[in-house]
Amino acid sequence: MTDLINNRRTIRKYSNKEVSEELICSLLEASGRASTNGNMQLYSVVITRDDEKKKLLAPAHFSQPAFVGAPLSLTFCADFHRFNLWCKECNADPGYDNELSFLTAMTDTLLVAQTFAMLAESKGLGICYLGTAMYNAKQISEVLELPHNVVPVTTITVGYPAEAPEQQDRINPSAWIHKETYRDFTPTDIHSIYDYKDEMEINKKFVKENEKETLAQVFTDVRYNKANNEYFSKQYMDLLGEKGFLFATELKNNK
Amino acid sequence: MTDLINNRRTIRKYSNKEVSEELICSLLEASGRASTNGNMQLYSVVITRDDEKKKLLAPAHFSQPAFVGAPLSLTFCADFHRFNLWCKECNADPGYDNELSFLTAMTDTLLVAQTFAMLAESKGLGICYLGTAMYNAKQISEVLELPHNVVPVTTITVGYPAEAPEQQDRINPSAWIHKETYRDFTPTDIHSIYDYKDEMEINKKFVKENEKETLAQVFTDVRYNKANNEYFSKQYMDLLGEKGFLFATELKNNK
Repeated sequence: MTDLINNRRTIRKYSNKEVSEELICSLLEASGRASTNGNMQLYSVVITRDDEKKKLLAPAHFSQPAFVGAPLSLTFCADFHRFNLWCKECNADPGYDNELSFLTAMTDTLLVAQTFAMLAESKGLGICYLGTAMYNAKQISEVLELPHNVVPVTTITVGYPAEAPEQQDRINPSAWIHKETYRDFTPTDIHSIYDYKDEMEINKKFVKENEKETLAQVFTDVRYNKANNEYFSKQYMDLLGEKGFLFATELKNNK
Repeated sequence: MTDLINNRRTIRKYSNKEVSEELICSLLEASGRASTNGNMQLYSVVITRDDEKKKLLAPAHFSQPAFVGAPLSLTFCADFHRFNLWCKECNADPGYDNELSFLTAMTDTLLVAQTFAMLAESKGLGICYLGTAMYNAKQISEVLELPHNVVPVTTITVGYPAEAPEQQDRINPSAWIHKETYRDFTPTDIHSIYDYKDEMEINKKFVKENEKETLAQVFTDVRYNKANNEYFSKQYMDLLGEKGFLFATELKNNK
C-alpha cells in the first residue's frame, strides 16, 4: 500500500470505460469501516451520474474538465440529519446544532472520503478532489436536495484514467513533521523548503502567464486570493447557519 | 486493500513492542502524497513520545487509556503558518485569515491523517483517533507550542496491538449512499436502519449502566450531550479566532 500511495497521481482526464455501480458501492461500503466519532457515522454521499444533474452541478464546480469529463462524481456530506431523526424516534433530545458537531461530522466525512479515494486508486481508478464543493456548497445542496443538518464537504470525481500525468512535487517532509514541539522556521528555513518550487519550469510558466514576480503571488493574487476566500467563507458560514450548525457564532452575534 | 479495511478494528491497547521513528516517518512521508488543495500542503504533525510531554497532554485527552498507554501519538494540525511565511518571503500578501482557509487546511490535514492511519494498519500497527484533540485544542496548542495560524484537528495514537477487539457494527451502507438526490427517511426507515443497535447486548448494557431508556439517550444525555457540545464549540471557535481564522464571524460581530 505504501508503494501505491508513493506513486499516486491525481487524475483529471477519464476514459470511456464504464465504472460499475457495484464497484463504487462496494468501495463505499468498505470505506464506511473508517474510524468515526462514537460510531455515529455522521456522513452521507450522493452519487452523481445523471447528465441532467451533472449539468446542474457543473457551474458550482466552475465547469472544470475533471468534473464535466468524469463518468461520475461523489459528493461527501457532513450529515447530522439521519442521526438526529434516530434520536427523535428514540425519545432522545439531540444537541448537535453547533460548530463542534459540524466539525465532528466533517471529520467523519473526510475519513470516509479519503478511504474511498485510496480504495478506488487500488482498483485502478483515478480520482480528483474538488475544493469547489465547499465554495459553492449552497448551490450543490439545492441540486442534491440536501435536508437541514446536511452540508457538502468535498466532491471526488471518479473514472478510469485517460492520462498519465507527472507526479506533483511535495515539500520535504521534515518541513511538516515536528518532534515533541512545533519547530518554528527562520527565513532561511522557508527558502530551503520552498525555493525549489520557483525553479520548476512549470511554475516559471505560471508566474509568467499571470504576470507575477513569484509563485507565491500566483497563489495570493490569483488562485486563492483574499477577496474570494472571504467571499466563500461568508457563503459557507451562511450555509452552516441555515443548516443549523452555528451555535457559538450566533451566541457572539447576540451578545 | 479492501480486505484490510473491511477487517479493520480501532486499537486502544498497545504492546511494548517498539515503534521505530524511521517507520513512522516513512509512513508520514508517504501520507504526504494524499491530495492537497492547490498542492499547498496545509498541515503539520507533531509526534509525541516524550513522557513529560505525554503527561502534559494527558488531561487534554481526559487521560484516556488509549492515549496514556500508547507508545506515541500524532497530533495533526491545520497549518497556514508555514505557507504564510513563504508568501511573505516572496513579496506576496496572504489572505488566509478566514474560515474557508481554515476548513481548507482542515481538509488537507484529515486526508493526510487518514492516509497515515491506513498505511499504519497495513504495517500491522493499531491506531485510535481521539476527538479530544478538538475539544481541548487550546491546551494541546500550548503544550506543542503551536504558532499563530496552526490549530490541532485530530490526534491519532499508535502502537502494536495488545488486543483483538470485536469489530464494531456499522449501519447498512444503503442508509448513507444516495443516488442523484438525497433520499429522506420515514420513521420506518430510521427504525430499520438503527433498531439493531438497541438490540445489541453491549448497547443494552450501556443503556442500563447509564440508567437510560434508549441507546440514543446515552448519546444525547451522556456521551455527546448538548451542554458539552456547546461548551467545546465555543472553546474551539475562540481558539480559531485567536489563531486568526475567523473573518466572517468577526464580520457578523461588527455589524
